[in-house]
Amino acid sequence: MDRKAEWIWHNGDYEIRQLNACLTSRYEREVFVPPFWHTDDFCKNVKFIRRFTLSKPERLEIRANGKFNVIVNRIQAPENAYIREFQGFVDLRAGEYELIVSVYNEKEIPALYVNGETVRSDEQFLTTSNDFRYSAAGCDGLTDPESPPGPFRFRYEDVDFDILRKDKDSLLLDCRREMMGVVNLESCEGEGLVHIWYGESLAEATDKENCELTDELDFPVQTRPEVGKAFRYVHLHGEGVDLTNLKVLREFVPQARSAKFSCSDEKLEKIYAVALDTLALNTREFFLDGIKRDRWLWAGDAYQAFLMNYYSFFDLKTERRTITALAGKPPVVHFMNHIMEYSFYWIIGLYDFYMYAGDENYLRRMIPTARRIIEFARTRKTESGMIEGKEGDWVFVDWANIDNRGEVAAEQIIYLKALETMQKLCGISGDDPEEYREEYEALKKVLFDTLWDEERGVFYYSRYQGKLNPAIKKHPHIFALYFGILDDEKKKKVIQNVLLNDEAEKIVTPFMRFFELSALCLAGETDFVYHEILQYWGGMIDEGATSFWELYDKNERGDDKYAMYNRKYGKSLCHAWGASPLYLLGRYLIGLEPTKPAYEEYRLCPKLVRLSSYSATLPLRDGDIRIESAKDTLTVYAEKTDGELWLSDALFDTEGWDEARGGYKIFKLRGGVLRTVAARKKIKGED
Amino acid sequence: MDRKAEWIWHNGDYEIRQLNACLTSRYEREVFVPPFWHTDDFCKNVKFIRRFTLSKPERLEIRANGKFNVIVNRIQAPENAYIREFQGFVDLRAGEYELIVSVYNEKEIPALYVNGETVRSDEQFLTTSNDFRYSAAGCDGLTDPESPPGPFRFRYEDVDFDILRKDKDSLLLDCRREMMGVVNLESCEGEGLVHIWYGESLAEATDKENCELTDELDFPVQTRPEVGKAFRYVHLHGEGVDLTNLKVLREFVPQARSAKFSCSDEKLEKIYAVALDTLALNTREFFLDGIKRDRWLWAGDAYQAFLMNYYSFFDLKTERRTITALAGKPPVVHFMNHIMEYSFYWIIGLYDFYMYAGDENYLRRMIPTARRIIEFARTRKTESGMIEGKEGDWVFVDWANIDNRGEVAAEQIIYLKALETMQKLCGISGDDPEEYREEYEALKKVLFDTLWDEERGVFYYSRYQGKLNPAIKKHPHIFALYFGILDDEKKKKVIQNVLLNDEAEKIVTPFMRFFELSALCLAGETDFVYHEILQYWGGMIDEGATSFWELYDKNERGDDKYAMYNRKYGKSLCHAWGASPLYLLGRYLIGLEPTKPAYEEYRLCPKLVRLSSYSATLPLRDGDIRIESAKDTLTVYAEKTDGELWLSDALFDTEGWDEARGGYKIFKLRGGVLRTVAARKKIKGED
Repeated sequence: MDRKAEWIWHNGDYEIRQLNACLTSRYEREVFVPPFWHTDDFCKNVKFIRRFTLSKPERLEIRANGKFNVIVNRIQAPENAYIREFQGFVDLRAGEYELIVSVYNEKEIPALYVNGETVRSDEQFLTTSNDFRYSAAGCDGLTDPESPPGPFRFRYEDVDFDILRKDKDSLLLDCRREMMGVVNLESCEGEGLVHIWYGESLAEATDKENCELTDELDFPVQTRPEVGKAFRYVHLHGEGVDLTNLKVLREFVPQARSAKFSCSDEKLEKIYAVALDTLALNTREFFLDGIKRDRWLWAGDAYQAFLMNYYSFFDLKTERRTITALAGKPPVVHFMNHIMEYSFYWIIGLYDFYMYAGDENYLRRMIPTARRIIEFARTRKTESGMIEGKEGDWVFVDWANIDNRGEVAAEQIIYLKALETMQKLCGISGDDPEEYREEYEALKKVLFDTLWDEERGVFYYSRYQGKLNPAIKKHPHIFALYFGILDDEKKKKVIQNVLLNDEAEKIVTPFMRFFELSALCLAGETDFVYHEILQYWGGMIDEGATSFWELYDKNERGDDKYAMYNRKYGKSLCHAWGASPLYLLGRYLIGLEPTKPAYEEYRLCPKLVRLSSYSATLPLRDGDIRIESAKDTLTVYAEKTDGELWLSDALFDTEGWDEARGGYKIFKLRGGVLRTVAARKKIKGED
Repeated sequence: MDRKAEWIWHNGDYEIRQLNACLTSRYEREVFVPPFWHTDDFCKNVKFIRRFTLSKPERLEIRANGKFNVIVNRIQAPENAYIREFQGFVDLRAGEYELIVSVYNEKEIPALYVNGETVRSDEQFLTTSNDFRYSAAGCDGLTDPESPPGPFRFRYEDVDFDILRKDKDSLLLDCRREMMGVVNLESCEGEGLVHIWYGESLAEATDKENCELTDELDFPVQTRPEVGKAFRYVHLHGEGVDLTNLKVLREFVPQARSAKFSCSDEKLEKIYAVALDTLALNTREFFLDGIKRDRWLWAGDAYQAFLMNYYSFFDLKTERRTITALAGKPPVVHFMNHIMEYSFYWIIGLYDFYMYAGDENYLRRMIPTARRIIEFARTRKTESGMIEGKEGDWVFVDWANIDNRGEVAAEQIIYLKALETMQKLCGISGDDPEEYREEYEALKKVLFDTLWDEERGVFYYSRYQGKLNPAIKKHPHIFALYFGILDDEKKKKVIQNVLLNDEAEKIVTPFMRFFELSALCLAGETDFVYHEILQYWGGMIDEGATSFWELYDKNERGDDKYAMYNRKYGKSLCHAWGASPLYLLGRYLIGLEPTKPAYEEYRLCPKLVRLSSYSATLPLRDGDIRIESAKDTLTVYAEKTDGELWLSDALFDTEGWDEARGGYKIFKLRGGVLRTVAARKKIKGED
């Protein structure tokens, strides 16, 4: 047995405990801002149970995180007696046993560590919160018996910085790039209050009255803030404290894997690098929305981060933690983050997880939550059968000035995708998909009957109190394309009338751009998207961004570009949804996607023809895939996975294919075998 | 405004927090024993909201138990902005406001204290756990701004004790009576480990290997145990520690009111006094089952304690805490304490609370829990429509050797009473009672069709796997009489064939005796019950009991009488259900009961005719009632409450009555007016 014993707990408790810590780390200057939706909690009283058979005597070391008692029953003669004067281990002779450990802890999650030669704590243990339901124990790779689960363990690392200004008592630092970090005064001298003002921009750090993040340390009693902060610039003032030996620590989660991308266009390389940094900074105990302001976990933001993650770090541990924490515990009292469609994104993301990561056991644990969400969503139905926001629901759609009251078209479309996904998830859980299929068909019909304007070839935005809102907004059309609910004829109309219509109001958040550009790619407009990436994200690079922003409007000048939510520096300059070029490039332009669950097979369908050359290494579930695009060839090597290369007739001249279908030449590729094929571009490069 | 500001919280949180502390104070020697059912938890993230209008400027002092932020919106111009650099108060000019305080606390319940001239924290504040549901804040009379809610505040008091034995390092004490207490070594000297063995009996305290409760103090670091213990005798051993100045502290909750009873029979007086002590000892943060062993809150035990309480301390605060803690939070995952009928007792007790205490607002908060319990109970229905225990259910009935699998008659009867109660509760909450009425009628029919043996005139005990269990046990018959589901003919049969049948197996637990003797009283057998009280409880007095036991069998001799659950001292010698003479005397023999909700009117129907004289002071909701029974007269004085005195023609000769009905002479009594009536006993006294 080579797997180490690890700390185990009642499934979901660790994630919920970390989520609560995460959601209560938000401060607006000195004001503490807890989440304004309901949060679940871990179970304080947990029973751990394991049956096993020993063929020879074995000593089990048993540790618990909390007050506990131990019962070891011989199956043939159970006594259910607590072990008296327990000394940390039990010596058992050969036989069949049931081990029962009850652990109670109010402050940290109850957890168990059992180590023997053949019996070790892992997911084979069952747990119960004493509600007479039993599930496999949860774990997260904590194998040190001396370190039971507690606060999330970040890595810390000294960073270099430039001193921009240094007076007698104050200091202004530039850490050269956006980061999540902690100021460390341990090596400083003196005594007094040290005030700290943080800035993602220099303007913010030097604006003591208006910067978003501050700290106050009573040195030397306090030498570092309790909670890490997001910044590039740090401004300190400490009367009576010599700050010369101050250090700045980067707080982060190391990544075992990372995609690589280089190419003949320097700006695109830069965009890719900054996108990678942006996602890495937001990849912590969970995929956060942005590290400065809320630093919270939002299901919609996370949905996009998951997709980016599959094309960058393939960090399934953070992803599982994120999915589990969002699932919380029954009953469903409101939508995730109290945003209606965010719960739907969570469901939709489950199936992506299946395709990229597999792990059916894990999915089977999550699917009951998906079913409960749909049940809850049904309480939001109007007479027509469509859904609308009720008290406590935030219908978000996009961070834009939109009236989302009533039956919103975009909301129905996202819900439709969730219903479609439920049918597929039933295939994994063995549930009957019929109820979801029926609901899907009925809702689709009422959507098109009611909110589709056949004459104009567009969606009404919404219907409120019986009145149709005729505004043509990109949002419903983007979702309709992205989630594939349009027939070819409607697709054409929507692309022409809305998506490529210069008169339609522009999408400004990277969040919505993710869907917009994805939709355009799916509609074949990869070339358009390529240029948009260079324009939009390139624009932020031109502004000196070292990470991508919550929102970018190239028309905003000077310090105005930092303002949002009526606050001078309200805008987050490092927002996960800003990293979407990772997905847009990986999924649509480099063109990689799984075609069987758990990435057992991939398809590579390259569309990146404007570059004279590029080289990409992307993670698959098992090993990486390397792609080299040279002038007239394409070389592909996947370490362990079989796949297919699809070259579009419209883009490439090639030869030696295995199959030709629907305007593509298809090459069958074998895992572990490097293959170079002819790929002569028909479209002129630009770099 | 004379009401003080008090600490407030999300309704139920305080009780649940105290319940968790209570349920995790059980130790079997050094082994920690947490509850083996699911426990709920308090909300960590609570929002407090209050709208108010100020006619002149006012300063509000605001304190919170936890991290918090404050928003004060002028209703006419809400800004929803956090108060920056909050200094503990807000100064407001005249106007209409909404105050919103968000409090987060992981360790203790989030709580709020607001004190102004007109605005003070009380139940007028709304709270939410941010699930977009709002309810009136909870409170428990904590008015000290410096003492936010935390551990329950017991009172402590030095007690006298006798030293039975004193050696060099050890000491054996007799505290003269059963108590809950704490050994205090603060004034001792020396250094070393002090071992403590507790005993409810001398035998237990001197049996170091087998006594149930122990402590180990590392003196002088530890000077008193963390958790109070139940004992009369204490045995200590401390090498290197001089125990001479040791103190013993009684840990208790003072009672503002207490019933009084004196009479011409010394033994009955003693029984009454010991019953009062027994209930007082178990009346703590909640009504506990027994102070030694589990010291837990059990809904069935509490149901009886409530009824005793109405005739002794009328402590509604402890009662509300107990009811609220048992209600817990949705969803219902199992029955209360995982015992099926215990949830039904809780429902039945709600209506008693209405009759004795009133408080419709409180009841309206509890009724949704009652509805959820019935919904849950319906998941336990068999094909016949009766209920049976499923996985995780404990069908208790009584602490006796009974097979409770399948459809148990007693269980149906208690459920019937719960369904009947639901109909009455609907009258308070304004819900439609129809579903409960229908279910009641259907269940009653199937019960009598299936489990009533018309030929023998008895109930079958149960039906399991289609097979009737013909054993004639007293239990179903007792419940059928007590809960009034029998017609007169069946009643007679049941009393004759079972209850007064010497060959039927005897009831041995005071828990079941409560129901048995109550049922007999209701059937008119008060004289029989009077003698039983003297026999059964008098038997324990003869054994030297200073509190009444969990179980009493006069045939058990020597130390055997302390054994239970296969443990030498497993039996609790101070069990709340042992105090039932309080109820039997008060309710049936002295004969007092409310006839309108909230004790707005009472009926006194005395049956205690074997005593030549007695004097009783019993609590009503408002003020006391005093009853003096002399040779030929009865004198009644209720301070504030109107009522009726009913004298049975079978028991009393009288005159001057206001009305005669059904074998009774009825006197109308006025609150605040002392009335003496002729009451010449027709039955010979015995004392």
